[in-house]
Amino acid sequence: MSAPLRIAIAGLGTVGAATAQILRDNAAIIAARCGRSIEIVAASVRDPGKKRAVTLDGIRLEADALALVAPDVDVVVELIGGQEGIARALVERALDAGKHVVTANKALIAHHGAALAARAEQQQTTLAFEAAVAGGIPIIAAMRGGLAANRIQRVAGILNGTCNYILTTMERERRDFAEVLADAQKLGYAEAEPSFDIDGTDTAHKLAILASLAFGVAPDIAAVHCEGIRRLSLTDIDYAASFGYRIKLLGLATLEDGALLQRVHPCLVPIAAPLAAVDGAFNAVQVDGDAVGRVVIEGAGAGGAATASAVISDLMAIAREDRYAPFTLAASQLQTVPPAALAVHQGCYYLRLTVKDAPGALADIAHAFAAQHVSVHSITQRTTEADRGAQVIVITHATNEAAIAHAVQHIAALPISLAAPVVLRIEP
Amino acid sequence: MSAPLRIAIAGLGTVGAATAQILRDNAAIIAARCGRSIEIVAASVRDPGKKRAVTLDGIRLEADALALVAPDVDVVVELIGGQEGIARALVERALDAGKHVVTANKALIAHHGAALAARAEQQQTTLAFEAAVAGGIPIIAAMRGGLAANRIQRVAGILNGTCNYILTTMERERRDFAEVLADAQKLGYAEAEPSFDIDGTDTAHKLAILASLAFGVAPDIAAVHCEGIRRLSLTDIDYAASFGYRIKLLGLATLEDGALLQRVHPCLVPIAAPLAAVDGAFNAVQVDGDAVGRVVIEGAGAGGAATASAVISDLMAIAREDRYAPFTLAASQLQTVPPAALAVHQGCYYLRLTVKDAPGALADIAHAFAAQHVSVHSITQRTTEADRGAQVIVITHATNEAAIAHAVQHIAALPISLAAPVVLRIEP
Repeated sequence: MSAPLRIAIAGLGTVGAATAQILRDNAAIIAARCGRSIEIVAASVRDPGKKRAVTLDGIRLEADALALVAPDVDVVVELIGGQEGIARALVERALDAGKHVVTANKALIAHHGAALAARAEQQQTTLAFEAAVAGGIPIIAAMRGGLAANRIQRVAGILNGTCNYILTTMERERRDFAEVLADAQKLGYAEAEPSFDIDGTDTAHKLAILASLAFGVAPDIAAVHCEGIRRLSLTDIDYAASFGYRIKLLGLATLEDGALLQRVHPCLVPIAAPLAAVDGAFNAVQVDGDAVGRVVIEGAGAGGAATASAVISDLMAIAREDRYAPFTLAASQLQTVPPAALAVHQGCYYLRLTVKDAPGALADIAHAFAAQHVSVHSITQRTTEADRGAQVIVITHATNEAAIAHAVQHIAALPISLAAPVVLRIEP
Repeated sequence: MSAPLRIAIAGLGTVGAATAQILRDNAAIIAARCGRSIEIVAASVRDPGKKRAVTLDGIRLEADALALVAPDVDVVVELIGGQEGIARALVERALDAGKHVVTANKALIAHHGAALAARAEQQQTTLAFEAAVAGGIPIIAAMRGGLAANRIQRVAGILNGTCNYILTTMERERRDFAEVLADAQKLGYAEAEPSFDIDGTDTAHKLAILASLAFGVAPDIAAVHCEGIRRLSLTDIDYAASFGYRIKLLGLATLEDGALLQRVHPCLVPIAAPLAAVDGAFNAVQVDGDAVGRVVIEGAGAGGAATASAVISDLMAIAREDRYAPFTLAASQLQTVPPAALAVHQGCYYLRLTVKDAPGALADIAHAFAAQHVSVHSITQRTTEADRGAQVIVITHATNEAAIAHAVQHIAALPISLAAPVVLRIEP
């Protein structure tokens, strides 16, 4: 057996503490499986005096994370978070010093991944971030390894457990968004400042990383079209269910005609599709490859132990001296492709129109779609409380975003229109 | 870029031809992703004169597979199949000559995996078999890599597409086993001699390999308790559905108190469980780890292109010079643990008893369970056509196999009993 792999952990929060705990509890099987033991020699914490659940005997504690880049450290594990500041400075310094880096920092990788990969390559060191996407789900290893023979056609994922928990709870308990969010905050499933999760930013970070691996491009977070779940109503969840769909916040990436379309938004997913069945705080990623077809991986997307499982899998690959570029391709080969305009997106749509319950309303609506050559799959009128008029639910056949946008704009301006139309994309 | 990895393919059937085709179609991305091109220098076929869909220009064709172990070959890809004969001879000769071996041969690995791993280790060469379990699903890489930090608690899988197709079709089309099997044979989804699939042998092979990876033991196919799906009736599929379950053929492995329990049998799975939703010819594997929790991977379990995707992923790992032992642990560290007796298995059970529709029948049945300390969760009597008596459906709380066996034996011997009881295990 070779010499131990010596690691330093920056940040002993939930994930850092779980990493230390599992490295201790499962030390024997980890060493047997990768042929070396993994030894924590140092850690950095904001408050060295704080009492912790995990034993830190024999671990050097530093107040300054940058001090972890030390001669007796082979790998720096960055668990501080944030796309700039100390996290970025630490990762850059560690790579430049020829240390391997393992990180769970999706913001850092989504924003600076390509530059950091080039830095790692220059020093012939490893930059690994399995824990940055979908927690314990080994999706990055799968894309870099098990699915690497495939030309990837599409990646789609439920990548944020908070959003999926809120949507699942709204549906199950028949409650409104604001109420469920408030409860989730009380229970610790959502942050006090929830916008990072519920506006889709966190999903966008993870999607940009997955798209990079899938299509051989540099992560391009700025190009992600991003809509969150704030405006979703129980009404639409119910109507969607009555038509055989569940509403999920998905991150989706496709490469078509040399342009990359990355989008994060709520979608109607057919009830029988694998992603529709993913409940609560679970995450799942669906990869469509030209050889393998559809592969779906589901598991815990967050939580200390699950994320630590991913961190340690990266450490074990380093211990075995697996050689791979951070984004599979050499940094110099990562392409920069133009973002596709959402207007050219092809797909089916769900629309809910609130209109006056008057003769001719349906005809006006049908005409607006016909004028844009949008083919309607079903159109259903449901009368609600008298003063709120009628709800018209339209499911279209495949069409494009621009045509829908024009039709909706036209309908919203009609005298029959009583409220802003709700438009949701349907994803197979 | 390093020198090409030179491979020889033994067998150009469905998987072999697809492997050659994908290596050609996706040559550029494969080379970019693993830093080397992969070049087929030779192949062996039974009939060198046969016309094939795939171009074989520049590929040396041999009638004798053993001739593929040649100086210009780095990796032998064994796609002949069978646990003995030419497949085994070829793999042994290739390993002994210091060649890497990639195989899709589950029978060979399940029967001789540990001995072959020791041979590979002796020559410091790689023996890889991602394609042997669940086709295109990268489950072996996940267990060896992405989930390797975990102490695995349980592996459960739908590992045979033919069985899952038959069960799904029985349920969906409300038809009997024999009829659906006959149709599946006509459509090519089942073999003319189907026993290898429907009696669970194929699932057992794959399970033994998964159990080896999960628990660090040598594959022990002889110890797998194996029941197939021949005796499953639509009646039980219907009753199961009415209680919230679907029936699936699962392979399941657990290690408890130092004993390994490996079993293949039809199970009732709760309708909301991920494995219940896996339809048609798809496969799925659920791994429960102490850190990561439950991870489920679903995808195509068979078919030329999907299986070739797995074969090529192994080739790419060899091209990158990833270093791992075939079963993760060094061959000398693979343990031989005693098989657990099925009698000690703990779980819930579904029983269907056909009894005379007479006063006291339910009391007799209830008494038989009470005598074995089996706690009943629900007991439901449904009267059927007069001459066939009543059907009593019992769902038990967790109990053990021995208690159930005794209770059933007692009930079968009662004067009220009209037919052999049906007993199915319920899996969470």
